[in-house]
Amino acid sequence: MALTVALGLRTIGTPTLVESYMFPQQVFPDTTAVNERGHLVIGGCDVTELVLRHGTPLYIFDEDTLRERCRRFVQDFGRLHADTQVIYACKAYVNPALARLLLEEGLGLDVVSGGEAAIARTVGFPPERVYFHGNNKGRQELEEAVSWGIGRVVVDNFHELSLLQEVASGLGKTQDIMLRVSPSVDPHTHVYTTTGVLDSKFGFSIETGQAQQAVRQALSSPNLRVVGLHYHLGSPIFEVEPYQHAMGIVLRLAADFREEGLNLEEISPGGGFAIAYTREHQPPSVAEYAEAIVGSMKETCQTLGLRVPRLTIEPGRSVMGTAGVAVYSVGAVKDIPGIRKYVSVDGGMGDNIRPALYEAQYEALVANKADQQASEQVTIAGKYCESGDVLVRDVELPPLTQGDLIAIPASGAYCPSMASVYNLNGRPPIVLVKDGADRLIRRRETYADLMLCDVV
Amino acid sequence: MALTVALGLRTIGTPTLVESYMFPQQVFPDTTAVNERGHLVIGGCDVTELVLRHGTPLYIFDEDTLRERCRRFVQDFGRLHADTQVIYACKAYVNPALARLLLEEGLGLDVVSGGEAAIARTVGFPPERVYFHGNNKGRQELEEAVSWGIGRVVVDNFHELSLLQEVASGLGKTQDIMLRVSPSVDPHTHVYTTTGVLDSKFGFSIETGQAQQAVRQALSSPNLRVVGLHYHLGSPIFEVEPYQHAMGIVLRLAADFREEGLNLEEISPGGGFAIAYTREHQPPSVAEYAEAIVGSMKETCQTLGLRVPRLTIEPGRSVMGTAGVAVYSVGAVKDIPGIRKYVSVDGGMGDNIRPALYEAQYEALVANKADQQASEQVTIAGKYCESGDVLVRDVELPPLTQGDLIAIPASGAYCPSMASVYNLNGRPPIVLVKDGADRLIRRRETYADLMLCDVV
Repeated sequence: MALTVALGLRTIGTPTLVESYMFPQQVFPDTTAVNERGHLVIGGCDVTELVLRHGTPLYIFDEDTLRERCRRFVQDFGRLHADTQVIYACKAYVNPALARLLLEEGLGLDVVSGGEAAIARTVGFPPERVYFHGNNKGRQELEEAVSWGIGRVVVDNFHELSLLQEVASGLGKTQDIMLRVSPSVDPHTHVYTTTGVLDSKFGFSIETGQAQQAVRQALSSPNLRVVGLHYHLGSPIFEVEPYQHAMGIVLRLAADFREEGLNLEEISPGGGFAIAYTREHQPPSVAEYAEAIVGSMKETCQTLGLRVPRLTIEPGRSVMGTAGVAVYSVGAVKDIPGIRKYVSVDGGMGDNIRPALYEAQYEALVANKADQQASEQVTIAGKYCESGDVLVRDVELPPLTQGDLIAIPASGAYCPSMASVYNLNGRPPIVLVKDGADRLIRRRETYADLMLCDVV
Repeated sequence: MALTVALGLRTIGTPTLVESYMFPQQVFPDTTAVNERGHLVIGGCDVTELVLRHGTPLYIFDEDTLRERCRRFVQDFGRLHADTQVIYACKAYVNPALARLLLEEGLGLDVVSGGEAAIARTVGFPPERVYFHGNNKGRQELEEAVSWGIGRVVVDNFHELSLLQEVASGLGKTQDIMLRVSPSVDPHTHVYTTTGVLDSKFGFSIETGQAQQAVRQALSSPNLRVVGLHYHLGSPIFEVEPYQHAMGIVLRLAADFREEGLNLEEISPGGGFAIAYTREHQPPSVAEYAEAIVGSMKETCQTLGLRVPRLTIEPGRSVMGTAGVAVYSVGAVKDIPGIRKYVSVDGGMGDNIRPALYEAQYEALVANKADQQASEQVTIAGKYCESGDVLVRDVELPPLTQGDLIAIPASGAYCPSMASVYNLNGRPPIVLVKDGADRLIRRRETYADLMLCDVV
């Protein structure tokens, strides 16, 4: 048992684990273990066997982890505030099979395009549980959404407020909306993913008075029904204070407009809940986020004499991120003495742009040598023709040779969703694993697929 | 005529141009003009009419510019060294229609994956004019390439040297190869696109002695025939000196191995030739690159007593970049007084990741108001749900309203090729224009296309 504790992973079969090779469980799916062959096991499936069947690069999503994360949000928020609704932010990654699973868990969907809405429609998602976000929704997208009976349009700006009124009126409908306001609160994350500050393309600024103007215009729009206010600060947010701070500001805005007819039925602090990408990361638990958000909502409502509204939260990364593991095969190993040892794998910036785009950090594990001690420092490079295509810099791993399998955890969110076919490498397949069985939920892109839209 | 000169664009019909609105021709296709309606015209096509037919976002490629760039390289290098071969770097962007056009212009192709090679095969490109590059080619990719009779494999590392010998032997073939060497020369470009320095995942380092070892191993590989050496410094390179400097280093390596049987039939300094993205950029002309490269090659060969080899150059960006223009429609306009005015368009980081990834700078022009004076500073934001999704920051444009068309020039290279379906926005169509006619060479991705590989 000492071995298991040291490794931080469950073992299956006879443990043959090397004590000093410690790996943080927190970045891997809940079902992750190492079997007696020293192989990484996820959802009861030996990763080397999954690779034999599906090849590499391969994305493995663990169904238990995914469902557990859904339940964490539903339960930990629901315990503190029964009228909580959990809406999954599809931008983290969605496809039809995953949308069905989210539906089964009772979540709604936050979509940001006609394409994401199309997935919801394809799997028969109830439209009332789908929210439409985005800073520049198109007329056609809005027409499709309103016709479908989408639950909420989260209106971002004056252009959209007028456009949506026009669209709803044209279709003879009344559309429930929330207004996305910007509370000028800095969540201390990457500047690319900070959204609730004053200098942002997102939302109506409270600081400038535009949010107040938007509330008035929305209340006087005959085909729009204002059900609440929405804000989103950025992602990932490792502190709870920004949520609390912003909650106070937004609820005060609601209170200011009570007399003018704003009935705050619903409020949303968006998402942005952090996950651990490396052993150093210590994000708040879902329960801690829940306490901070629900606590500040209830307190402020009491202070302001507001009825406590429905709470809508929008986790994306924190539901999907830890459930996904990327697996690559080692090809060329290039040792530049005194400088760096490059280990090239068969994927890279095409399937995971985050290291190049955000300088994101990841852990790595050798899936077929999960019981071996780390002995050298290497840099995991991709196969794309750019020096920026490096997945993990300076990571300690056991000795590597061609054919070894590198597993990169915390790859479920913002990897497949942002994938390109750069260098005309087809995008990887995705398998969903559970109880020792795997199910292909996205197949590998073929040469023919790559030319699908080309007109010859 | 004064107006035309001031604008820097040709006019068609009655000129109604505003004198002070100057725009740099150098970043636009050669055929760019403004017609009497004040509309941008490319390849004889009014951009507003192209948009009516194909929608936005839309990529417009100008056939004349593309062919002219091909001919520039063929002629300006050929004039100084008849035995020059121009190989187009497909990674910049290729599809079947463009590959046919490159074939007609007498170019070869530099491919970096099985997918790019598949396009070459699809259009019947002669395999001997196709070169296979990359730091981690897979076994299957090499087998396909060798079976097809690909002209050269540019071998990057020892793993590949052994693997290719094995593959060629297994297929009973002898494969012509070049060795990619790294001369430790810094071309002073973005760190992500600097490839010929010591600390790089690409090539055999001369400084460490690994290149020398690779030459010996290659010469003794029975199924490989070493025809030459290749280096590539990075991209875009705005100076000619790095090419000259590296040429000297690589030719000396060749001279050192003459006695051991290295017959240098061919040398390649790769590509990396710069283009202008903004009015400030002043890249060398093709003739200047040619003079520097051919000059240093011939001089050094004379000094070292080497026969002057075939020269292979690999332009990508410099062939395709300026030929392409992206066109977007304006949606929401958000003015944050005293801070910034955000103009949101219907594309963004999904179709052009370069501003977010490399902090790339672009110009912008209002395609339906190309005759109007710039009067305000705006920031062009995309529709993707990230604050980092900004295409052009603080650009001077005429007053904008929804439906206006923003044209972003120099978008032919590394835009469609790096495009993702992030946020499930389908990738834009591409039209090739010439002499007033347009031809769709890639159609818009539909909702169904987005789910093509999903297994339901």
